[in-house]
Amino acid sequence: MDLKKLLRPESVAVIGASDSEGFGGGVCRNILNFVADRRRVYFVNPRRVQVLGVTCYKSMADIDDTIDLAIICTPQKTVIPLLHEAAEKGCGGAVVFASGYSEVGTKEGIAAELALKQAAESLGIAIMGPNCAGFANYVGDVQAFAFVSANRDRRGSVGVVSQSGQLCLTMMDDPSMRFSFSISAGNAKLVTLEDYMEFLVDDPDTKVVCVYLEGVKNPEKFAAVLKQAAQKKKPVVMLKAGRSEKAGEIAASHTGSLSGSDQAFDAVLKKFGAIRVDDLEELKAMSQMLATLPRLPKKAAFASMNLSGGETTICADVASLYGIEYPDFTEETLEALKEQLPDYATPNNPLDTTATLSYDADLYAKVLRTVMADPNVEMILIGYTLLHEIADPSIHFMYEGIEKVSKDKDCKPIAMIPFMENTRNPEYSNKLFHIGVPILPPTTYAFKLLAYLSAYIQYQGDEKSLSLKCSSYTTKETDVYALSEYDSKKELMAYGIGTGAELVAKSEEEAVAFATKVDVPVVMKIESADILHKSDVGGVKLSIYGEEAVRNTYHEILANVREKCPDANINGILMAPMLEKGIEMIIGVNNDPLFGPIVMVGMGGVFVEVFQDVALYPAPLNMSEAKEMLQSLKSYPLLDGYRGGKPCDIEALCKTIVQVAAYACANVDTLQELDINPVFVYDEGRGVGIADALLVKR
Amino acid sequence: MDLKKLLRPESVAVIGASDSEGFGGGVCRNILNFVADRRRVYFVNPRRVQVLGVTCYKSMADIDDTIDLAIICTPQKTVIPLLHEAAEKGCGGAVVFASGYSEVGTKEGIAAELALKQAAESLGIAIMGPNCAGFANYVGDVQAFAFVSANRDRRGSVGVVSQSGQLCLTMMDDPSMRFSFSISAGNAKLVTLEDYMEFLVDDPDTKVVCVYLEGVKNPEKFAAVLKQAAQKKKPVVMLKAGRSEKAGEIAASHTGSLSGSDQAFDAVLKKFGAIRVDDLEELKAMSQMLATLPRLPKKAAFASMNLSGGETTICADVASLYGIEYPDFTEETLEALKEQLPDYATPNNPLDTTATLSYDADLYAKVLRTVMADPNVEMILIGYTLLHEIADPSIHFMYEGIEKVSKDKDCKPIAMIPFMENTRNPEYSNKLFHIGVPILPPTTYAFKLLAYLSAYIQYQGDEKSLSLKCSSYTTKETDVYALSEYDSKKELMAYGIGTGAELVAKSEEEAVAFATKVDVPVVMKIESADILHKSDVGGVKLSIYGEEAVRNTYHEILANVREKCPDANINGILMAPMLEKGIEMIIGVNNDPLFGPIVMVGMGGVFVEVFQDVALYPAPLNMSEAKEMLQSLKSYPLLDGYRGGKPCDIEALCKTIVQVAAYACANVDTLQELDINPVFVYDEGRGVGIADALLVKR
Repeated sequence: MDLKKLLRPESVAVIGASDSEGFGGGVCRNILNFVADRRRVYFVNPRRVQVLGVTCYKSMADIDDTIDLAIICTPQKTVIPLLHEAAEKGCGGAVVFASGYSEVGTKEGIAAELALKQAAESLGIAIMGPNCAGFANYVGDVQAFAFVSANRDRRGSVGVVSQSGQLCLTMMDDPSMRFSFSISAGNAKLVTLEDYMEFLVDDPDTKVVCVYLEGVKNPEKFAAVLKQAAQKKKPVVMLKAGRSEKAGEIAASHTGSLSGSDQAFDAVLKKFGAIRVDDLEELKAMSQMLATLPRLPKKAAFASMNLSGGETTICADVASLYGIEYPDFTEETLEALKEQLPDYATPNNPLDTTATLSYDADLYAKVLRTVMADPNVEMILIGYTLLHEIADPSIHFMYEGIEKVSKDKDCKPIAMIPFMENTRNPEYSNKLFHIGVPILPPTTYAFKLLAYLSAYIQYQGDEKSLSLKCSSYTTKETDVYALSEYDSKKELMAYGIGTGAELVAKSEEEAVAFATKVDVPVVMKIESADILHKSDVGGVKLSIYGEEAVRNTYHEILANVREKCPDANINGILMAPMLEKGIEMIIGVNNDPLFGPIVMVGMGGVFVEVFQDVALYPAPLNMSEAKEMLQSLKSYPLLDGYRGGKPCDIEALCKTIVQVAAYACANVDTLQELDINPVFVYDEGRGVGIADALLVKR
Repeated sequence: MDLKKLLRPESVAVIGASDSEGFGGGVCRNILNFVADRRRVYFVNPRRVQVLGVTCYKSMADIDDTIDLAIICTPQKTVIPLLHEAAEKGCGGAVVFASGYSEVGTKEGIAAELALKQAAESLGIAIMGPNCAGFANYVGDVQAFAFVSANRDRRGSVGVVSQSGQLCLTMMDDPSMRFSFSISAGNAKLVTLEDYMEFLVDDPDTKVVCVYLEGVKNPEKFAAVLKQAAQKKKPVVMLKAGRSEKAGEIAASHTGSLSGSDQAFDAVLKKFGAIRVDDLEELKAMSQMLATLPRLPKKAAFASMNLSGGETTICADVASLYGIEYPDFTEETLEALKEQLPDYATPNNPLDTTATLSYDADLYAKVLRTVMADPNVEMILIGYTLLHEIADPSIHFMYEGIEKVSKDKDCKPIAMIPFMENTRNPEYSNKLFHIGVPILPPTTYAFKLLAYLSAYIQYQGDEKSLSLKCSSYTTKETDVYALSEYDSKKELMAYGIGTGAELVAKSEEEAVAFATKVDVPVVMKIESADILHKSDVGGVKLSIYGEEAVRNTYHEILANVREKCPDANINGILMAPMLEKGIEMIIGVNNDPLFGPIVMVGMGGVFVEVFQDVALYPAPLNMSEAKEMLQSLKSYPLLDGYRGGKPCDIEALCKTIVQVAAYACANVDTLQELDINPVFVYDEGRGVGIADALLVKR
């Protein structure tokens, strides 16, 4: 959808302009406060001659200009007629603040939204909302936001789109945030969140795409946009509601979004290298850090510089909590620092420069340059608590020092980390912003953000299969049914999974013939789609060898099952050569209603159940993604030559994972669930063995 | 040590009073800014007649008053003579800012500190520092702090003691912090950190003890103070350097503290119910929350109230990350909320009240009272981002509503949680403080703090053995030696650990006699203190039954060992009835140089090694503490009737843990390490079996 007239209009009409509180009043005030060139901004209100000193038109028809964007501040029932009027003036975009649509969940509301959608489509108007707070375009000087906020320069390069107007406003209220666009998407079922994201990923003024979302409408488009961002290396930072069940429910009722599994969402973002954050402070600070830094560090290699020992230990400890490591300085750096710092300082990374340094801008610059020149270091973290009212003059000297260094051609990225959040001095916050130094939130947040940054710069999109296989799954109850073990294995065989050295014996004689032919101990299992827990009903017997044993077991199993499951439909007895034991793994697939097959891998038994040590990844996936999944397991060392043992056949295991994903993609419309448990992994070069498999289809 | 004259002096002399920058200038300025009654505050400087308009005395002798506290702002070499002068005036406390003592690590520095210590002791003067920033006593109106900070009312009930002057100052710079005392302890080897903590735990004006420490000097006293705090239910909030190895090194070089293991420190704080935080923001905010709340909640049962859906989902999600759960509201509450809230609101906990509520103080109070009256709720969290410049008037109405409710006799604790940190409006911050409503940091911090709070109110000190068995261990290298398995088991037997059904066979005949007598399969192991890894040298044989097998095995083991360890001293062959396999656990003890025996429990094999799933706890410990250790293991479900199996004999396992701790305490001066691996745990009522044990002594 073309959002140009909506988000970058040449001419704007505010319908329902007003000087009282409310949508109309808010928009008009924001326009007067923030928009410098108002020559093509028109206020419309049939009952007013002037609003806030600006001439009012009775209707859009009276305006002697075309109208790109109509900002409709009036109640629900007026909206569709106004869209028709606007269309007459060439309108291509409209903001609709009114609520009472699908978000209320009533039949009337849903019908109203449908009617709005139809009108918009037939008139070719891109609609923001309904039930939204509007938007501000800080690069193009457009104000269509309904809530007022303090007067301040907000022009920057973070493009925000949010399904919550309040969170949008809170970010605009933050003194450190600077935007290209700030968009409150509202119900976002007409122009969707994915549409706005696509616009911002494309937009040259937007350096970072910053998203609050409660659910995804169009998973294919969502994936396509994330792929585009990954390829452009434009960071997407995302706060998504629904880590907890409660939040999932609230989000669904708030905007009526479909919600897939939150874990699937997590896995999808990981695949596309988008950054998922945990709260609004992180969303803001992560986005603003990425937007402020002139460039990102080449490696996650940080140096920390602080004015005191206490601060230095905090930077060491909190960094270690988030897996941030400080490389050692080289001998040259240490030598230089020993010369530059007072005698009682002990050069080290993290570095306590001692406070004396903060009263000498030249010396500060010198030490900063020394640290920056260290080849092991790619980004410098300056620990300093910038107060609102400056009681101590050290920031003057420090700033001067940093500013000198920031002009160096080979200046590496710098960020400032306060130890306590309070009121940051606006003058110095601004100055630091303008030389490309973001101030992060205090340490726990700061090092969490640096961990996000580290993961982001290490992400290699070109090694991933940047696509999803979304299903046409609907939330309707569908009949699901399980396949028998034999049928499950047979289906998987077609994708190269398993050996197929199995037979369903329909008679004692067939069983004996199989056992005689393979001439190794066999496993015998009841074969029935009706019996999922075969062991529980005496339906599984292991290590059977010799004709007599096979005959006896055949009858024993049938007797057990007839007694315990008299109604089960029995296909026979599944005969298979007894598999040698290896390391037990589980491979599963859950077909997510939004994102399609999500592959799960974990170590069998208590590892999955007690430690929840599993890796999830959306299909399709390639060998390097399968390997990444395995490596993300805490139990991975057990596969990789634990305690001097032989490494397992990780290659074969990865191949199986890739094949399972391929099977799931090919059967996305019929697969409900897949469970291979256990798959035995043998020593390197010796492959894997599929002991049991279960397909649930729909 | 009596700190009364140091911390609550009646009369004060500033030695080296000055109007230029530096210690003397800082102290004088702070006194003029903050101390209302300066009648018994004297400035001393032989070279000045006046300082900042205040008359200066040439020396303390010239002052016609006794001097309780001497604040010595002059260089190192002047300090001891000044202490003598001060003693003449009845002085009992002194602040020494000068540095160049033990913290520099030189022989001269250490000697200077020793001389200072001897002078202080002989003169009966309690010395703060050296190398400190001094202190402020906000309840007694005493200023002896060297660094200036903004003019502001800081009187409150958080008692701070910090080994970093900078961190002390940063907390004083925070607009929300309010102190009884703020103490920068410096090197703290004269008056120690433990002494200040004891003072603050005793001090009736101090509601919360807030500590930054880099190491413990006197572990017995540290434990005694924590015990006192636990018994008084006075919270101790602590930031300790040294989670990471790097920070440990920096902290040690910064104040030259002994450092035990950080994990041991953690375990000690847990035992005494002290709250360990991760950074300065947490230290400040946790302390200030505990000090501001009129009372603590009775249970960790929170309700969340927010003005928008987006904010509500954040409170749901971030809470779940930190294990904070919101109990469901009762039917009565839901009914009442449905009446009080707009139609489109969906009552729930967490609650989205919708923004309309924030413009009606009475309605806000009504809804708050409804939530508070819910019997499932013990504390209310109000989600709201208080800006520095108020753009939206809702806080006026909300505050008015909260204020009404805060006067209710049965008002439950309330805290405010912002979604983004920026500049908090000072007027409303103050107002909220005065009605007992703390403003927490943004959500990630806030819910982490609430998790600390939950653990704190759930802590039951009376169920713990509130003591430690610190050792007289010194950091000197000591000869350590291992005991053989038999000798290890014999020692443990005396403490009721193990069965003693074992024999060291010195001959083939003795081995056969043992095996014949027990008449069950036996395990035979080489018995030698020189061979720690018996299996690796063919020194262990399992399930031996029958005379011939015993004879053969006897010779086989000896042959193996003679070949692989020709120099080992061999005591014979350890004979034991073969233990039935149970769940494998490990029990260990590490004798911490500071805190004495720290008991470790974990599940055997990969659980400890790969998942680091272990519990640590300082000895001595009782049954309920042993149980708590087990319950803290992720693998605990495997002991407690996993998948419908029988529960293990947890009682017997706990008993063994308690006995091991008792053994370790009794042998604290000689024990280096203890390792029982594995101990088999059998089904309930069937006890445990000690398969192997190793003592390392010194």
